[in-house]
Amino acid sequence: MTQHTQPSAKALVPFVSVDNMMRLIHHVGLEQMLRDLAGYVEDDFKRWELFDKTPRVASHSDVGVIELMPTSDGESYGFKYVNGHPKNTSEGLQTVTAFGLLADVYTGYPVLLTEMTILTALRTAATSAMVAKYLAPKGATTMAMIGNGAQSEFQSLAMKAICGITSVRLYDKDPAATAKCAANLAGTGLNVVICTSPEQAIEGAQILTTCTADKQSATILSDNMVGAGVHINAIGGDCPGKTELAAGILSRSDVFVEFPPQTRVEGEIQQMPEDFPVTELWQVITGAKTGRSSAEQITLFDSVGFAIEDFSALRYVRDHIKGSDFFFELDMLADPDDPRDLFGMVQRAAR
Amino acid sequence: MTQHTQPSAKALVPFVSVDNMMRLIHHVGLEQMLRDLAGYVEDDFKRWELFDKTPRVASHSDVGVIELMPTSDGESYGFKYVNGHPKNTSEGLQTVTAFGLLADVYTGYPVLLTEMTILTALRTAATSAMVAKYLAPKGATTMAMIGNGAQSEFQSLAMKAICGITSVRLYDKDPAATAKCAANLAGTGLNVVICTSPEQAIEGAQILTTCTADKQSATILSDNMVGAGVHINAIGGDCPGKTELAAGILSRSDVFVEFPPQTRVEGEIQQMPEDFPVTELWQVITGAKTGRSSAEQITLFDSVGFAIEDFSALRYVRDHIKGSDFFFELDMLADPDDPRDLFGMVQRAAR
Repeated sequence: MTQHTQPSAKALVPFVSVDNMMRLIHHVGLEQMLRDLAGYVEDDFKRWELFDKTPRVASHSDVGVIELMPTSDGESYGFKYVNGHPKNTSEGLQTVTAFGLLADVYTGYPVLLTEMTILTALRTAATSAMVAKYLAPKGATTMAMIGNGAQSEFQSLAMKAICGITSVRLYDKDPAATAKCAANLAGTGLNVVICTSPEQAIEGAQILTTCTADKQSATILSDNMVGAGVHINAIGGDCPGKTELAAGILSRSDVFVEFPPQTRVEGEIQQMPEDFPVTELWQVITGAKTGRSSAEQITLFDSVGFAIEDFSALRYVRDHIKGSDFFFELDMLADPDDPRDLFGMVQRAAR
Repeated sequence: MTQHTQPSAKALVPFVSVDNMMRLIHHVGLEQMLRDLAGYVEDDFKRWELFDKTPRVASHSDVGVIELMPTSDGESYGFKYVNGHPKNTSEGLQTVTAFGLLADVYTGYPVLLTEMTILTALRTAATSAMVAKYLAPKGATTMAMIGNGAQSEFQSLAMKAICGITSVRLYDKDPAATAKCAANLAGTGLNVVICTSPEQAIEGAQILTTCTADKQSATILSDNMVGAGVHINAIGGDCPGKTELAAGILSRSDVFVEFPPQTRVEGEIQQMPEDFPVTELWQVITGAKTGRSSAEQITLFDSVGFAIEDFSALRYVRDHIKGSDFFFELDMLADPDDPRDLFGMVQRAAR
């Protein structure tokens, strides 16, 4: 090993590993962190108009997709790398892995690199619960959780922490997934009911969360299953060709979305005509539009995940690792003493 | 510090720091690495048609730009993060910093994260020289290097290593930049001539390289300065509003470009009508189109930098760090034993 040159502070980018992300979560407390993240997401939805918004940049293959999700508020720039490979699970790999970066718009220099597989799970659940706070019927106590994969426990705890849900009714076509979810939720204070059909799961539930991962058009909820007055939190329909709900449900619901140009391609509403009416969530959160207007109304959050939610999560991590040991610094940026003398820096490293 | 959980090999991403990139360069030798990179870029230009190609995704601000440059050959996916902030130099920062990532298309899992500030400098120079090998007049010995900033030494050495250039004639409006470049090139075997005007620099040169960085339309070469039979390697005009050459030069030249949809917006040809004729370089390299057709012709490489060149550089680094200590592994991907049990992994980390 040659002698290492010492980079200056400008060349170092704070990095949060998977291990350190888990330490941060346990330091803050999972439910508290879900509440905090929901607050950061809510704040950014309130200033939605000032963000640079663009549909994600996707590279599709036969077996999955790799996406970049950039956005900027004019002061900070963030992006997430995320893949979606439903077949991975059968090979012992994650369907979704992710990492993200935050940079300073004024200099273009990165200021944070972090794992985002776990952080995405948290921000997705926090966003769902923040939205349900606006749309679910008042006094909701029970959620049906259909699809008991990697997102299910986070959804359940976020709805508990942020909306006051006390009971979850679990269903998955694979009973082993339900058993795993139920075991993980034991001791969290949630009343957990294991169900053997979607019909059983939605009995008495005011919030119906669907989160299944097949890359295909499926019907987890059929039209006749959904009665008046519920809030549907549809997580799993999030790329072209992948839906979970019968079109008839969409027709009877008021549909709320993050960013219409993306949701019309990726969400449940890809099944509907291009001019199918939707409400942008940020307008509900600022008060410009009405959320739930009656007890009988079916509200539907057609969640696909948007770059601004990742940006909020990146901001949260940047703010909360300051002065902590939940990160270490990566020598990722070349920083010559004379900015025009990159070559000289490389040459001097030979010594 | 709590006890760390041990991630599996799948969760670890090889990371090449700035320090290790410099060690790799000195291990291989700078001129050899420039030749190797030119070979990788040439190979990827030969299979140009099978790449996913998209103009870079740019986020502009008043003071600069942050870009993501993704591409894929169907087996590997790569992207580069790069900023361009001309005002940074006056604040002691780099105009351009970059890092990049390579991933496996089949799983979506990242397989390499690397600094790319230095690597971009090398791949840009290697691409210029690879292109000059096809377009410059036979037996070229002398290059004018106009603009003596961070890219100038790499351009000079790549033209030496790949095209057999023996002399460089340096000019910059700032004599200190020229002095720095001359000092860095001392002892490399190049005959270096310090010039005090662009006119003096181009005397007797068969290759004219321009690489100036102002984010504005400028005229480094005016029409009457450029005579018959030269090859112009125009590096600096690479974003909207930033050009270096008089339009008259373009009219008299045969212009060669990387990816027309990007070059028409960012390159020297942004000054010309939309249907201004250009030749795609990959077609010259496969033999489908003619490069230099006469001794009198002016050839012009309107270089803006394309994602495939970064992909080539990422492939090179991946191939050359195997079995070496030029990288370390980052715990960047969450990898639960049961892929559906992300929550359980997080919970177990609390112990």
